[in-house]
Amino acid sequence: MPSNAPETQSQALDLVFERVVDLPPAAIWRAWTTPTLITQWFTPAPWETIASEIDLRPGGRFYTVMRSPEGQTFPHEGCYLAIEPNQRLVWTNALGPDYRPADTSAGGPVITAEITLTPEGHGTRYRALARHATAADCQAHAAMGFAEGWGKALDQLIALMKRQQA
Amino acid sequence: MPSNAPETQSQALDLVFERVVDLPPAAIWRAWTTPTLITQWFTPAPWETIASEIDLRPGGRFYTVMRSPEGQTFPHEGCYLAIEPNQRLVWTNALGPDYRPADTSAGGPVITAEITLTPEGHGTRYRALARHATAADCQAHAAMGFAEGWGKALDQLIALMKRQQA
Repeated sequence: MPSNAPETQSQALDLVFERVVDLPPAAIWRAWTTPTLITQWFTPAPWETIASEIDLRPGGRFYTVMRSPEGQTFPHEGCYLAIEPNQRLVWTNALGPDYRPADTSAGGPVITAEITLTPEGHGTRYRALARHATAADCQAHAAMGFAEGWGKALDQLIALMKRQQA
Repeated sequence: MPSNAPETQSQALDLVFERVVDLPPAAIWRAWTTPTLITQWFTPAPWETIASEIDLRPGGRFYTVMRSPEGQTFPHEGCYLAIEPNQRLVWTNALGPDYRPADTSAGGPVITAEITLTPEGHGTRYRALARHATAADCQAHAAMGFAEGWGKALDQLIALMKRQQA
């Protein structure tokens, strides 16, 4: 675990997805932080991510636009909070760029997400933590299919980066 | 302005309070970041701040308890985002400790606050910026007396730190 990541975890408020992945941390980091890569894996098919902006600094904008199979588009805006290359990436959609509070009245899960990458053997222990404000928010996000969605997205990330390596 | 503070400001979404203060930046910084000092100035009298916890790191807890003249207590929890000693302090109550989204359903203004301290003559240009999610939130905060409240609190800060200097 990176030194300055005092990762507290709450059973009632957090969702965790963890898997050992056959890619080096740097490849996973690149997939997460490169707009032209993230659009290729971020959203479980048949949904797509059709646009992305990544301003990789604390307070910077993390923006994606998802498209449903029916062609409806859903913009998502967040704010990067902590950036430790190849180790730890934290962002939230409770804030927008420059840390401005987000208008969360439209609904949808409000989370702070923390991706930690730890070298393990020839690969990486990939851990995604989603923090919520309340147990109800956490349960609703679990019921929406958090684990399945993040798992499918990770499968797509792995396939993409394996092709890039090949 | 500190180098990595790309301070965008929105006329519709931000409130700004600015004054040149006859104290060095370090004294103002100390007043903002020391629990035993902040309790002495943070809340315009006759309200009081009766407790404070300050975990001065990005993701750390900023906690205060205010008490009304009638004796009712109001805890406030926030999260530090950016810490540049003697220059810039950013926190939000849209998040709690470890960047966890806050439960904002109780109401009250949700803000990201940015204090910037710039040496000017023998003193300091003190600037407090409050960012809001929506124009309605911003207007409501202005109507609650943002400028008067922050002005009175600053008067108390100055009086306290002048006594400390003397």
